[in-house]
Amino acid sequence: MSPSAALKQSTKGEETRSQILAAAVQQASRCGFESLTIGTLAEKTGLSKSGLFAHFGSKQDLQLAALEEAARMFTDEVFRPALKAPRGVKRLKALIENWVSWPQRANLPGGCPVDQATREYMHTPGPMREAAIARQHQLDRELTRAVQLAIDAGELAKKTDARQMAYELVAIVLASYRVTPLRGEDEGYKFAHAAFDRLIEANRP
Amino acid sequence: MSPSAALKQSTKGEETRSQILAAAVQQASRCGFESLTIGTLAEKTGLSKSGLFAHFGSKQDLQLAALEEAARMFTDEVFRPALKAPRGVKRLKALIENWVSWPQRANLPGGCPVDQATREYMHTPGPMREAAIARQHQLDRELTRAVQLAIDAGELAKKTDARQMAYELVAIVLASYRVTPLRGEDEGYKFAHAAFDRLIEANRP
Repeated sequence: MSPSAALKQSTKGEETRSQILAAAVQQASRCGFESLTIGTLAEKTGLSKSGLFAHFGSKQDLQLAALEEAARMFTDEVFRPALKAPRGVKRLKALIENWVSWPQRANLPGGCPVDQATREYMHTPGPMREAAIARQHQLDRELTRAVQLAIDAGELAKKTDARQMAYELVAIVLASYRVTPLRGEDEGYKFAHAAFDRLIEANRP
Repeated sequence: MSPSAALKQSTKGEETRSQILAAAVQQASRCGFESLTIGTLAEKTGLSKSGLFAHFGSKQDLQLAALEEAARMFTDEVFRPALKAPRGVKRLKALIENWVSWPQRANLPGGCPVDQATREYMHTPGPMREAAIARQHQLDRELTRAVQLAIDAGELAKKTDARQMAYELVAIVLASYRVTPLRGEDEGYKFAHAAFDRLIEANRP
C-alpha cells in the first residue's frame, strides 16, 4: 500500500471509530453501558459485527472507549469553553451553565453518561468501575481548583471550603437534571441560576 | 374453600407478592426497571414463571408495581419518620437525614429507584414515565409544603421561596448519592450536613 493510501485508510478507520463511539455514548446515556454490545452497536451503526470487532476486541473494550469518549466530550463542551472566562466567579458561572445545559446540547437524553457509569458499576468491581470513579475524582479536583482560583482572586471569602463548595456546585447541576424532565429546561435553568447566585453570595468575602 | 382457608391462601399470596416486589425494587435500583422481566424475577426469587404471571400479568404490570413499592418504601422510611420531628427546620433536617441515608439503609445500591425510573423513561412516553413523573411531582409538593411550614413557623425568612429551597434540598441529597461511591458514606453525610446547615442559615429570618 502506498503511504497516501495507508493514510486514507487510517483516516477512514478513525472516522468509523468516532461514529461508533458517538452512537455508543448516546445509547449508554439512555440505556446504560451494560446495554452496549458489539451486536446492538452493529445494528445501530449499520456496520458489520466483524467490522466492530476490528475496532473493539470485546464488549468491555467498547464500554471503556465509550466512557472515555463521554469524558472527552464533557471536557470539550463544559470545561474547555469555561476557560475563556476570566478566573474566579465568572469562570465558575460559565462552568455551571455549560454543565447544566450539556446533556441537552449533546443530545444525551439520560443525563451525564459518566454519572450513569458510576451508578451502574458502583458495586461491580472491575475496570469500568475504576474508570468511572477515576473520572469523577478528576472532575472533583478540577472543579475544586476552579473554586480555589476564585478564593485566591479574592472573589470568595478566604474561609470558603473549596471542596464543600465544589460539592454544592455539583449538587446544583444534578438537581437541574432532575427538574428538566419534570418541568422543562427553562425551569431547570432558572432554579440552577438562583441556587448558584445564592451560593456565591453566601461565600462572598 | 372455608373462609379461614381462603384467608390463609390470600395471606400467603400477599407474602409472595411482597417477596417478588422486594426483589424487583432491588434489581431495578441496580440494573434499571427495563431489566425487570418475569423470567429474571422468577430466577431471582426461585418461583415459577407461571407463579409470577399469576401475580403480574405482564412485564409492565411488574415494573409499575415495583415503582409503586419503591415509592411506598420511600414514604415509610424517609417521610413518615420525619413527621415525628416538630414542624419547621427540625423536620426538614430529619427529612434530609433520612433521605440521604435511605439507599444504604434499604440496601438499594443504585440509589433511589424512583430517580432511576425517571431517568430511564424520561424520553419514552407511556405508563412508566407518567408514574415516575407523578411520583416526583408528589415528592416536590410534599417537600415544598415542609419548607412552607418552616416559613410559617417563623424559622425561615418570610421571603424564602419554598420551591427554590425544595430544589436546593433535593440537590444536597442527589450530590450525597454521588459522593458516597467516591469517598464513602461518612464523607457524603458530612458534605450534605454542612450544605444543609449553610442553606438554612442563609434563609434565617
